[in-house]
Order: sequence, then C-alpha cells, then structure tokens
Amino acid sequence: MTARPRVVIVGAGFGGLAAAKAMEKAPVDVVVLDRHNYHTFQPLLYQVATAGLNAADVAYVVRGLFRRTQRVAVRKALVIGVDWDSRSVLCAHEDPVPFDYLVVAAGSACNYFGIPGAEKYAFPLYTLEDAIRLRNHVLSLFEAASAVPALLDDGVLTFVVAGGGPTGVEVAGALGELIDRVLREDFHDLDISQARVMLVEAAPQLLTPFSPKSQRYAKRELERHGVEVCLNTAVTRVTEDEVTLASGDVIRTRALIWGAGVKAGGLAERLGLPTGRGGRVTVESDLSVAGHPDVFVVGDIADAPDGKGAGDRLPQLAQPAIQGGKHAAEQIVRTIHRAPRTDFRYLDKGTMATIGRRAAVAEFPTGTKLTGPVAWLAWLALHLLYLLGVRNKVSVFVNWAWNYLTWDRGPRLIIRPERLAQTAHPLSDLETIEPS
Amino acid sequence: MTARPRVVIVGAGFGGLAAAKAMEKAPVDVVVLDRHNYHTFQPLLYQVATAGLNAADVAYVVRGLFRRTQRVAVRKALVIGVDWDSRSVLCAHEDPVPFDYLVVAAGSACNYFGIPGAEKYAFPLYTLEDAIRLRNHVLSLFEAASAVPALLDDGVLTFVVAGGGPTGVEVAGALGELIDRVLREDFHDLDISQARVMLVEAAPQLLTPFSPKSQRYAKRELERHGVEVCLNTAVTRVTEDEVTLASGDVIRTRALIWGAGVKAGGLAERLGLPTGRGGRVTVESDLSVAGHPDVFVVGDIADAPDGKGAGDRLPQLAQPAIQGGKHAAEQIVRTIHRAPRTDFRYLDKGTMATIGRRAAVAEFPTGTKLTGPVAWLAWLALHLLYLLGVRNKVSVFVNWAWNYLTWDRGPRLIIRPERLAQTAHPLSDLETIEPS
Repeated sequence: MTARPRVVIVGAGFGGLAAAKAMEKAPVDVVVLDRHNYHTFQPLLYQVATAGLNAADVAYVVRGLFRRTQRVAVRKALVIGVDWDSRSVLCAHEDPVPFDYLVVAAGSACNYFGIPGAEKYAFPLYTLEDAIRLRNHVLSLFEAASAVPALLDDGVLTFVVAGGGPTGVEVAGALGELIDRVLREDFHDLDISQARVMLVEAAPQLLTPFSPKSQRYAKRELERHGVEVCLNTAVTRVTEDEVTLASGDVIRTRALIWGAGVKAGGLAERLGLPTGRGGRVTVESDLSVAGHPDVFVVGDIADAPDGKGAGDRLPQLAQPAIQGGKHAAEQIVRTIHRAPRTDFRYLDKGTMATIGRRAAVAEFPTGTKLTGPVAWLAWLALHLLYLLGVRNKVSVFVNWAWNYLTWDRGPRLIIRPERLAQTAHPLSDLETIEPS
Repeated sequence: MTARPRVVIVGAGFGGLAAAKAMEKAPVDVVVLDRHNYHTFQPLLYQVATAGLNAADVAYVVRGLFRRTQRVAVRKALVIGVDWDSRSVLCAHEDPVPFDYLVVAAGSACNYFGIPGAEKYAFPLYTLEDAIRLRNHVLSLFEAASAVPALLDDGVLTFVVAGGGPTGVEVAGALGELIDRVLREDFHDLDISQARVMLVEAAPQLLTPFSPKSQRYAKRELERHGVEVCLNTAVTRVTEDEVTLASGDVIRTRALIWGAGVKAGGLAERLGLPTGRGGRVTVESDLSVAGHPDVFVVGDIADAPDGKGAGDRLPQLAQPAIQGGKHAAEQIVRTIHRAPRTDFRYLDKGTMATIGRRAAVAEFPTGTKLTGPVAWLAWLALHLLYLLGVRNKVSVFVNWAWNYLTWDRGPRLIIRPERLAQTAHPLSDLETIEPS
C-alpha cells in the first residue's frame, strides 16, 4: 500500500467540512482538527441564545459525519500554529500533525475595535458556549429583577445590541419577542414594561449591504417589535453596568450583546502569513497562499477578492466558506492528478436576515428583493436545508412549529457553569490552555 | 381584600410541584422556591448523560407551569434554612420568605457512605448539571483515548458504575449501548474493544426490591449488552484514576458513576428537626412535623412509614413524592377550612427499571411481573405520561424514535464549562455561595 498524501483541515465550520466532504472519495487521508467535537451552525446561534432552540439542534458531532469514511479522521484539538519547516500543525496538548496539504478554515472572531471594556463585558455570539452563556445571562437578569425589584430602576432589564448587521438585527428581534411574548408571562410578578431592547449602529442605516427598502423595512419591523433602533450611534466605552455612546449618553445595562464586527480568528496572526483587512490571511486567486502552493485558506479567515473587481472582498458568511472549502479540495485533487489549478469564482446566492415572526428580508443577485412572510418562509426553508443532519432538521422544525403555534419557547434553562466545572478529573477537559 | 395565608414550598421536584398544583385554586398565596429555574425529571437524567436526550427535554421551566396563576409565585433561590421564631425561610442571597404554612420538598443527595475519595471523584446523577457533566466527561475520555492511544492500556475507557439499583442498572445499560452502538462508529480509529463498563454492587443481587426472576433477567440483559456485573463487590476507596474494591482488587478508571445510595438533601440537617434513616426528616402520619403542625415534609427528604406496617419506610421515588405533595396541600386546605386532617396513605403503583433497547423490568403490587419488550414499552409510555409539558413529550418521543430507528444518539456534545463561566457579570449567577 503506497502512502496517500495527507490533508490536514483546521476547523470544522462550513469551510472545513465542505473541504473534507469533497475529499471523502479522493486518494488522500484527511485529518479534521477542531477545538470542539461538533460543527456549529452559526446562523442559528441567536435562537439558542434566545431560548428558541436546543443547543444540540444547531450542533452536529463532526465524527458523526465521517463514520462511514475510514479515510477521514477527526480530532478534537486546539490548533495553536503551524511549523512551516516540518510542515506540521501545532496543537496545544497533542503531538504536531504533519501534512502534505493544509486547508486553514479556522473562522472568525469578534472585533471589538479596541473599545475599552468591550472585550471584557460584551457578550459575543460566535460559539455554542457563547449562546448558552448569553441565554443564562438574560434569564438570570430577569431572575435578579424578580428577586431584587430595585434593580429594575437601575437598567437590569436593559439589553443593548451593538451592530446593525444581520447578527445584530436577528438577535435584537428575537430578544424583543422573547421578552414580550414569553418572559412577560413567566414573570407575571414583574413590571416587564421596564424591559428595553436597544439596537445601536454606527452607520446611518441597518443592514448596510441591503437595499434602502429592505433597510427601512427591517427598522420598521424591529420598532414594531418594541426594539429601540439607534442609528448613527457608536459605542465608545463599556463597563460592568454601563455603555457609553459617542454622544456622551450613558446607558445603564448589564447586557451588551456584540454583533458589531468580525475579524479573522486568533490563529491568523500565529501563522506568520501576510494578512489583509481584519487580519485575514491574503490568498491567491486559487485560494492558496503565495509561496505555499499546498496551503489553502478559506472562509472567514481568508481575505479573498469577491471576483466582481473593484477590490471588494468576499463577505464573512457561510456561502463563501462552503464554496471556498470545496474549491480548495478540488485544487488539492487536481494537483495530485497533475491537472492545472483553477481560479475560485464565488457564486453569490443572495443574503437574508430574519427580524421576527413572519418578518425577514432576502435579496438575490438577480435583483429580486423579498420582505415579510415570503422572505421569512424562504429563510426558514433555506436554514433547514443547510442544517446538517436529519435529526437536527426534525428537531429544529418541531421547535419552530411549536414556538410559532404556541408563542412559547422551550429551553429557557439557566445551566450553572460552576456545577459543570466541578470535576477533579483533568481529562474532562483537554483544553485548559487557550492560545493568547 | 383580606390577606390569604401564604404557603411556601421549598423545592420544585415531584413533591413540591404536586403540592403547588394542588393549591392553584385554593384560597392561599403560594411561593415556590428552587435553586434551579426548572423542574428536573430525574428518572431520565441518565439518558441526558448518555447522549440520548437533550438537557431541555428532561427539564421544565417552573415559571412556565404557573403562567396563568397569579396566586403562585416562583423564585429561583437557594434555601439555606428556616427561622422557626419568625416563621420564615432563609435564602442565600435574598430576604427571608415568611410563611404561614411550609412544605419542605427539598429532595435527596448522593450518599457516599464516607468512602474515601468517592465524593471528590465519583460522578453523581441527581441534577441536570450532573448529567451534562457526566456526558462531557465520558465523551472527553474517548477524545483523550483517540489523542493519546497509550491511555487505552491505562483504563481510560473503563467505566465503573457503583450501585445495582435502578439508577445503576439504567446508566450501565445505556452506557454500554452508547459505547457499543454509537461511539464505536464515531471513533473508528480507536480499538473500542478496550472499552469496559462494570457494574459493581455490594449485595448478592441487582435491583434488590424486585423479584429474583427480574433480578436474574436484568443481570442477563446487562451482560448481553457487554456490561460486566460484579455482585458482592463493595467499593472501598476512590482516587483520580483508581477504584479499590473490598476484595483488594484495584481497577484503573477515570469514571466512577455513583448510583450506590441516597440520603436526604443537605437542607435536612439545617432544619433542626428530628431525623431518621439517611438523615431524612421524621414526619407524623399526616406528613406534618411533630410540634410544627403547619410544616409538612414530603418526598425524598421525608422519613415516612409506607403504611404496610412492619416499620418499613417510603422509598425515595417519584410516586411517594407526588402523592405526598398532594396530600400536604390537601391538609393545608383542610386546616384553613377547619376540617380535620387525614392520614397519608401511599398507593403503590409499582416499580420499573429499563436495561436497554426492548429490555426492562416492571413489577406491580397486584403481583404482575413483566420483563422484556412489554415492560420496556410500558416504561416508555409511563415516562412520557409523567414528563411535564407537551413540547418535552414531543421532543423526547422524537428522540426516542430516532435513537430506536437509527441506533444513533443525537446530542453527544462536549460543552466546555470554562467557556460558559467566562463572564465578568456578577448577576449572571446569583448562587456563587453554596451552603456547606
């Protein structure tokens, strides 16, 4: 048996999994490395954070995807860098993993733009743990208000969402619905009218890449759901219980949710490769790295042209990552078969954002623009389609139907982390060291 | 408006909720206190621990049960004692809660019988957090074995379950199935034949209260599922990576699951009331406390006669708790209406335990004894019936059907607690102080 080339994929997000899936039958051995044992369907994290879905509904165990494929190995490992001399991936607690080809699909991280206090106090929404943590926090604030009503006058139920992009719009809308429709009933002993959801955006409009019509629709719908939309408003400082705006206004709040910016994940700066906007790794037209023809960088961590000219870059969304991962896999197979490489062409399938019950916006490159129930149904259908695993699809569908029909939300549990952590067994967590 | 008497219920388990539900329309104000914001369906915790069910499937938000009942208030609070002089319940972080009537339904805790190391290293299964923690640990051990194969020879995949009662039997059976049917496929790079599940029981038989026929059936079925059943075997010492048995044998293991004993919850000894077996509070024939006619103690924390004479006590199960809670509520209403109290009569509806797919035992006081698929279906149906909430019933049914048809398990996620805890907001957790 001759040794097959070994392809190491860093990250089991949309990009990494698309690459691995595309190489399942190729003459290579694939190793997928991820710090979690599951793939996270990030577009629905905000629904976990607002108690609409179970954590397990938006996560799929990576090993479960490759059970029938002996050539794909999956490892839960924290990648901390690459040794270019020995051509191996460095992990926090394991031996280096040598590669012949490397696909870096390590994703993005929150960009706090150096705003004082933001990184320490704001709640991001990038991982499943982020979502559970935010859900715990929101529900705990309501419990705190119920236990100590004086906190109500001190903004304990004021929720500030920073960033008017899809993430910010979706989380603000879902939070407004959760409070108005569910927590109002749960906490019938509380003056829920004191609860506020604010969406602050530095630009003069929401959903910048969308058309003005969709932008106005989103603002109107959010306001109809009770969300205060503050445009032309930047956050300048964050503390434990205050958010300061550029106007000088100070908002008392214990919950600032951060949807204001994205940059490359922490691994980007540890690779020693040239980077562009947002710290993203600069790639060639075939998504490989200059001087490293066997190394591909795809998805949120890659700084790639969008192919429309004008110097615009690919957006940090699922579609470019999926298409990029697949393209990288194809280039590796082509290289092995000594076929010439091809340039990456991004096929824009459109963008969507949901605002709440029966309210969403969707825009397609054909020029079609949808708002309202039709866009919302399209959003639901597409997200079910792209969600991995039949069980997850069924569970999400059941939960959505339930929430829609009953105005209820199921999993509004406060899971106490200190109780989870209560273990004397070091093997319970292989990842106590995080990369800086 | 005349003031209604105030009934405080400590604990939202089976007993506390039965009491609260029975008083929904009574001329009283009810306050339900629990350290969690949800009711836990403890009989199915082992399925969360073995990745068969979502955490939210076996939990129901307590506030959600009393949304339409203005007279029932729910508070998430950690009860640390009772001040008998001022007749109020003391909480860790809140003002005392005064009562006219008190129902203590604070449940049970693991009994480690003073075995050195057991409390520190063994994994109990009493709370939802316990279940998630055990799931994390089991899956992490498989990841550790995959990352460092040398650990395989050091018992990293040896799972020891202490206690041959229903909890021990159910978790051992489910763990055996999880490993044999699911993790074997997930970890196709691992020599899974090295994985062992041992069930150790000090008595000469499993399921002591059952008939010898059921006991033998349970043992045979467990062994058929690959579980090593060790009877007449007591655990004498536990360390991080070893369990010592009474025979002197030492088993290398990082996972000892404790189903070996139950005692009253920690609150029992803080009440200053007379206690009986297992630290349980001694109650009168109407479930009130001698000298405290307005105080009732029900469920696992109560030491009550089973009504069969012979000095036997009620078992620590859901049914005695539900019936006791209802009885206490009735006595409170009777007292308010100046009607005479009645004695508590426990109606034994039978006991069941499941061993695995299509394998269970069920015994009824009529003398009927079932084993096999019929007992298993009865077990499934009864658990669905008693589970709170339509959404949870649907979700559990969907998960069971899925697991049965596909041999798969869904939510086998490792949720990293240190990431959940990563918050600088003190209000995220009102319970950092635990009672000793």
